[in-house]
Amino acid sequence: MSLSVASARPLRLSTAEADFETRFAQRLHWSAETDAAIEQRVADILADVKARGDAAVLAYTQRFDGLSAASLTELELTQAELKAAFDGLPPAQRDALQQAADRIRRYHEAQKKASGESWTYRDEDGTLLGQKVTPLDRVGIYVPGGKAAYPSSVLMNAIPAHVAGVGEIVMVVPTPRGEKNPLVLAAAYVAGVSRAFTIGGAQAVAALAYGTQTVPKVDKITGPGNAYVASAKRRVFGQVGIDMIAGPSEILVLADGSTPPDWVAMDLFSQAEHDELAQSILLCPEAAYLDEVQAAIDRLLPTMPRAEIIAKSLNGRGALILTRSMEEACDISNRIAPEHLEVSSREPHRWEPLLKHAGAIFLGAYTSESLGDYCAGPNHVLPTSGTARFSSPLGVYDFQKRSSLIEVSPAGARRLGQIASVLAHGEGLQAHARAAEMRGDA
Amino acid sequence: MSLSVASARPLRLSTAEADFETRFAQRLHWSAETDAAIEQRVADILADVKARGDAAVLAYTQRFDGLSAASLTELELTQAELKAAFDGLPPAQRDALQQAADRIRRYHEAQKKASGESWTYRDEDGTLLGQKVTPLDRVGIYVPGGKAAYPSSVLMNAIPAHVAGVGEIVMVVPTPRGEKNPLVLAAAYVAGVSRAFTIGGAQAVAALAYGTQTVPKVDKITGPGNAYVASAKRRVFGQVGIDMIAGPSEILVLADGSTPPDWVAMDLFSQAEHDELAQSILLCPEAAYLDEVQAAIDRLLPTMPRAEIIAKSLNGRGALILTRSMEEACDISNRIAPEHLEVSSREPHRWEPLLKHAGAIFLGAYTSESLGDYCAGPNHVLPTSGTARFSSPLGVYDFQKRSSLIEVSPAGARRLGQIASVLAHGEGLQAHARAAEMRGDA
Repeated sequence: MSLSVASARPLRLSTAEADFETRFAQRLHWSAETDAAIEQRVADILADVKARGDAAVLAYTQRFDGLSAASLTELELTQAELKAAFDGLPPAQRDALQQAADRIRRYHEAQKKASGESWTYRDEDGTLLGQKVTPLDRVGIYVPGGKAAYPSSVLMNAIPAHVAGVGEIVMVVPTPRGEKNPLVLAAAYVAGVSRAFTIGGAQAVAALAYGTQTVPKVDKITGPGNAYVASAKRRVFGQVGIDMIAGPSEILVLADGSTPPDWVAMDLFSQAEHDELAQSILLCPEAAYLDEVQAAIDRLLPTMPRAEIIAKSLNGRGALILTRSMEEACDISNRIAPEHLEVSSREPHRWEPLLKHAGAIFLGAYTSESLGDYCAGPNHVLPTSGTARFSSPLGVYDFQKRSSLIEVSPAGARRLGQIASVLAHGEGLQAHARAAEMRGDA
Repeated sequence: MSLSVASARPLRLSTAEADFETRFAQRLHWSAETDAAIEQRVADILADVKARGDAAVLAYTQRFDGLSAASLTELELTQAELKAAFDGLPPAQRDALQQAADRIRRYHEAQKKASGESWTYRDEDGTLLGQKVTPLDRVGIYVPGGKAAYPSSVLMNAIPAHVAGVGEIVMVVPTPRGEKNPLVLAAAYVAGVSRAFTIGGAQAVAALAYGTQTVPKVDKITGPGNAYVASAKRRVFGQVGIDMIAGPSEILVLADGSTPPDWVAMDLFSQAEHDELAQSILLCPEAAYLDEVQAAIDRLLPTMPRAEIIAKSLNGRGALILTRSMEEACDISNRIAPEHLEVSSREPHRWEPLLKHAGAIFLGAYTSESLGDYCAGPNHVLPTSGTARFSSPLGVYDFQKRSSLIEVSPAGARRLGQIASVLAHGEGLQAHARAAEMRGDA
């Protein structure tokens, strides 16, 4: 079969076929390749920035971004510049950015209230137990430059940090040859970024992790980036916290056939247009509906400015899968643990309880993933590549940490001292035992 | 100055001295060395277990643990064996283990209630937003064997997983030459471990991460281990979740001079007895009190079975520091972000609000760290080496993950569609814009 560039034929599969498991596993397969040359260059850049600070960051910024400056201070964006970028936007963009930020803030405030507050309780003997939840002091947010410069990512990273109460939010964004993206700067203003530097790559990650004369050392670094940035984040992990390292973006649509096929086709496109490695999968128990979606793909694809990327993604990694039932579709979804999961059904609340693993669940035909990407409120930084089995969307909790609180009463010390003494002796740790006994005997 | 082995002289410092910062920084310095030989051996073991499964695990278990078996099934401990270990304990140990487990369970249930429940809210236009919190399906718990076999660690890892609702908890514990620790097996019984294998090292981590014919693949691996285990956990991260990689244990005591000096000396010992790299630091604004604690150290050390390790730890890494005030002691504590922080003061609640970063905070003279290690209730798996700046104690939240929930109403789709359309066009993602517009136009 030969395909023209702008024709998209996602793989057709059926769970009833004998070779389904094999073909499906092949389609899902993706593995992060680590490139030894990149690894070595990143290690060198990190060591150099650690040793020489500002001077090294300036040298790499000149070399990789074609941007010269006499000092790193020149590469800091002032709050006035950020505000000017916002004020200078067309009113529709300014309003959209502000409304998106307001909704994202509201959602993350609810998240903080539901799961991010300190708590304590007292035992019957007066012993106090609990956890104190506190914000990180200072975080770094990496924002890619160039073609992948997404102002929405600035909102999604900075607003949860702000809601958490982080003292200082430091943004880095490369501006190759000095070209600044006004929407990114405006988003930084709306989201409450404290300081911003026009630096990027491994050198920016190093500056945030170790601190330089000009760039303050942070406690955690979040935000997406290319292979150099991902490698640098892995390497500084432990020295600072990091968020997840993202793989290609994915959408899984569970459809019962009730949603207009054009809508589903466009949702598959909206994932595919990100990147030719992005993955769009549709699961449905109605064969005729899969045909209708394919027809919608054929009809709509030529109208898309990014048709070529969409076609490559759908042809290389997409799939339209006929299932025996919606229940089976839910089972398959749980095996994939997709980043984005649309339940495009008349009865989304019937299926939602069956769905165990997903970054974000979009319920009902009106809930297109793109609304979630920009402005519904929840975070668009989500676990990819099946990591939703064990990890969560970026949230306020990523910008907080917890400290256990314990205050043992004199009565509690007698009771607990006996238990601890027995167990400590059992582990051969006599100082632990004595420390516990001393309090109990007092 | 020459010291006999069983004499312990923690470094005496004063914040008023001109060279304090330098000497203090030297004392704090610790860095995780990565050993290239270990890294290569671990990479080889992981690849071998991934390729050969059970056969590879059996071969390494024979080689490293001197334990032969015809099949991996022989190395599985039955529930009956775990129960028999519990039933066979002396009654005092059995009761202590059960009481500790009950208290740890109660604390983690409170933690789940405070921060680990699903939540939703509805917008004015009927749009539903929230987060669904669900347990991980299956987790692996690594328990060290030999001299560092701590039954308390079994409780501290397995109980939060159990409270979170994890479906299956798989424990691995090496038993060199087949020697089993009855307290460890009993703890697995009390904590609700589902399956247990007497395997360890990098091969056990690989078996859990990739799955073998006999060992089920898990979603996350927690628990402490030696350099091989730590390296293996780092390498499988991404494939599965992992908890933190722990550095040497630390205690920081803030004292106002009101606690019996023997108690504080014993608390410093109880950290130091773990490991000669463990760090025990006392901060106090009263010089005379530091002298009293040193005298207590001198008097009590000869009575300790682990005197030699304690002396090495205190001489190499310990410090008694005179501060100008309790406020300054709190500032220094925030810079260190200690794993264990004792506020050994008559007014612990005066100082607690000033303490921003710590794994666990022990308030008041009666609250010895050893009570927290065993049975107060909070987790004893805590962030080390300053990582309390950005990370938290092990908890129920480590065995849960979150999925965002979004259900946009038709009215919401119109409103949100406009915002998303503007922002998507601004990012050059036209399929995103169209998917949003289609719903708004419906």
